[in-house]
Amino acid sequence: MEPLLLQISSGILLIVKNYTGDRLNFGLAAEQARNHGVAVDMVIVAEDCAFDRPSKAGRRGLCGTVFIHKVQDHSFVGSGLPGTLGVSLSPCSVPGCLPSFELPPGDMELGLGIHGEPGIRRSKVSSADEVVRTMIEHMTNPNSQSHLPLQSGDTVVLCVNNLGALSCLEMSVVTRATISCLEARGVVVARTMTGSFMTSLEMAGVSLTLMKADQEVLTLFDARTSAPAWPNLSSVSVSGRSCVTEAPVMSSKPQDDTQNEGPLSPVMRKALEKICSTLLEKQEELNSLDRTAGDGDCGNTHAQAARAIQEWLQGHVVPGCPGRLLSILAGLLEEKMGGSSGALYSLFLTAAAGHMTEGRSNTAAWATAMHAGTQAMRRCKSRELDELMKLKTAPPAEHMAVLQAAVQRAASGVESTRDLTARAGRASYIAADRVTLPDPGAVAVAAIFTAVMETLQTGS
Amino acid sequence: MEPLLLQISSGILLIVKNYTGDRLNFGLAAEQARNHGVAVDMVIVAEDCAFDRPSKAGRRGLCGTVFIHKVQDHSFVGSGLPGTLGVSLSPCSVPGCLPSFELPPGDMELGLGIHGEPGIRRSKVSSADEVVRTMIEHMTNPNSQSHLPLQSGDTVVLCVNNLGALSCLEMSVVTRATISCLEARGVVVARTMTGSFMTSLEMAGVSLTLMKADQEVLTLFDARTSAPAWPNLSSVSVSGRSCVTEAPVMSSKPQDDTQNEGPLSPVMRKALEKICSTLLEKQEELNSLDRTAGDGDCGNTHAQAARAIQEWLQGHVVPGCPGRLLSILAGLLEEKMGGSSGALYSLFLTAAAGHMTEGRSNTAAWATAMHAGTQAMRRCKSRELDELMKLKTAPPAEHMAVLQAAVQRAASGVESTRDLTARAGRASYIAADRVTLPDPGAVAVAAIFTAVMETLQTGS
Repeated sequence: MEPLLLQISSGILLIVKNYTGDRLNFGLAAEQARNHGVAVDMVIVAEDCAFDRPSKAGRRGLCGTVFIHKVQDHSFVGSGLPGTLGVSLSPCSVPGCLPSFELPPGDMELGLGIHGEPGIRRSKVSSADEVVRTMIEHMTNPNSQSHLPLQSGDTVVLCVNNLGALSCLEMSVVTRATISCLEARGVVVARTMTGSFMTSLEMAGVSLTLMKADQEVLTLFDARTSAPAWPNLSSVSVSGRSCVTEAPVMSSKPQDDTQNEGPLSPVMRKALEKICSTLLEKQEELNSLDRTAGDGDCGNTHAQAARAIQEWLQGHVVPGCPGRLLSILAGLLEEKMGGSSGALYSLFLTAAAGHMTEGRSNTAAWATAMHAGTQAMRRCKSRELDELMKLKTAPPAEHMAVLQAAVQRAASGVESTRDLTARAGRASYIAADRVTLPDPGAVAVAAIFTAVMETLQTGS
Repeated sequence: MEPLLLQISSGILLIVKNYTGDRLNFGLAAEQARNHGVAVDMVIVAEDCAFDRPSKAGRRGLCGTVFIHKVQDHSFVGSGLPGTLGVSLSPCSVPGCLPSFELPPGDMELGLGIHGEPGIRRSKVSSADEVVRTMIEHMTNPNSQSHLPLQSGDTVVLCVNNLGALSCLEMSVVTRATISCLEARGVVVARTMTGSFMTSLEMAGVSLTLMKADQEVLTLFDARTSAPAWPNLSSVSVSGRSCVTEAPVMSSKPQDDTQNEGPLSPVMRKALEKICSTLLEKQEELNSLDRTAGDGDCGNTHAQAARAIQEWLQGHVVPGCPGRLLSILAGLLEEKMGGSSGALYSLFLTAAAGHMTEGRSNTAAWATAMHAGTQAMRRCKSRELDELMKLKTAPPAEHMAVLQAAVQRAASGVESTRDLTARAGRASYIAADRVTLPDPGAVAVAAIFTAVMETLQTGS
């Protein structure tokens, strides 16, 4: 372990972890420097909280050394001396050497050093919350010779240190568990740093370092530094900080009146019922088409959407405001239909809903909304989307004839997917009769358009 | 993957990596926000350099997204678009799932994604330098559709990203190799960040991201941020930065005259020869004593030191300045004796040498030097040191009688280690006759003192 050399105006401060070899060799270096006229002082960090009783070599220097590097030797005269405890699911791996100890799967080792020394206690792995509670209890147990005196009302800085092989996800879980555990004991967590600060090659473990901190320690802790490994911490206390960032200001249009039935409610309900029954009828046809080039579940996905809409229709009023209805359908499909199809329909409906403003319900408004929906899909589309679904919609229209034309366009869109499939180059490994089948997503969309038109022709 | 929400004065910028599901779902979120009156814009990051030819889904968004988060969308209009390539020795591990691909030991996979997708090419593992060269060549190959145009004279920022399971040591090796490789191609590396910025659970791999940077990009890159994961980078260019930190100012005493022989040279040579022959004679005795409580190699360690000194004496003049001689011996023992004993002797001699100033050579000066040596050992001592070596030295003295007394004190010091050993509690598991043997380190030190005294009595 190389100590940090801090060149202070009047000389050099050597920060050394309490290991025999380190004390001797860096002590030797200090003497050599002194012989060259350099003022050198040396502090020994020994903040290991592992040992209940005094050990021969004294407490080891662990990740708390990083805190001492930051606040320099202030903490030795101030309020805060750190305390550290490690836990691991594995020993470290020293290249070319056998592991320094064996740990069976499912076991964890508490109170280890950073040079491959085994810990003080072994137990079965449990949840992060339980492991952290065990660690904090051991670290602060007044019956242990090496404990950190910590009481309700104390303020601490916390370092959650990756001993080598934990993922960022696991580190975040442990960090959250530690903050919760400390706050539950009435301790104020002023700062938290999480990451790889003092590692032990590939050790699948974590150490916790706590240092009591008054305002003076916090000022030193927060002071800017050019050390590249020091994290970009906020100087706002972790405890008491809101986890929920403020939501962006939403427009506050009163929406209550959009919940009520209106003149369009019956025809919209009928159209939805027709769409649902059509999709359920076509379930097997769509699955069959999808088996040629996809997962064979296009019919199932649409049937799932249809049943979700049917279920919703049974328990709810269809609002007279078409924009409101499209929003509700967008939410239903996003939640219940799933997959890329659900996201795609939901995207279309959400964008369309945003353009059915002011309760407008004439054909022009519908056409504008449909256009907005397709534009939204274009904004998000990747090349895959072209193959996912060949949705064709009508241009802005003003009467039934144009809707009929739209349905025809949808039908011809379906036909065009026969060629698209062939052009996509599948002909080389798919039998010729299957190549010319239309895209099931396009068939579903055409069926939906047809269902809407039939409802309008017969029911309104 | 959750995109970062940047709330800009006039609205929100969504930064999304180029994956179908991400584009669709975050596109949907953007539409929903727009329906609530929030201004949202979305940029898609697609900087993967893996694919030689256009792929169906386009280039993926990888760790370069982190650069875009920092400089926001500036780079899309400015000079810099990042390029990224990953390499790994393993797939990622998704909890509860089988690995997405298998990689035999000794193989590596080039050009992978961050969601467990396999790469574009597999080869045998080679050195970091070679792997990095292969990566940079692939990333900048003009024949590849997804290459980053990079020429000699270009300035870049570099991100060396841990894909999950590499150690800090390995990351540093790769970082150094990458900087060397780029500089060898005439590229100026303006900034380097190394760490876990975009990981793929437990993947034992690394990705390199390069972004060309003009002064405007560098200003945005260097700008302070409150993002906790952003590293504490220096805004000094990496290329051209000196790796050697300035050495502390050494005192510039002319030392040439201390290299020459002087009146004391013959007696000091004789004393050293006597010390060496004594330690070699006692090799087996010391080993035998050490077998009781140690590794049984105390005699070997001292014999090694003796041979190193003998060899040095054959090829060198013994300087007349005693401080100079002690410095030379300190260096010899530090380098050749090894272990804690070597460090301990070296520490003693270094501190003593520092007090043999101004070419003083009377007995008082020697006594002061010996005292400084023991003080230095005390400053560095841990409890183990007491057991390592029970060195007793004489108080300041002025004539031969006191040196004799010192030798007697050393001898009685040796005797006292019989009791020390017993008090150390070993009596419970070591046979009684072995307990009362003296400490071999103390025996060696007493023998050295005796050899010095005998030389002075007979040879000077």
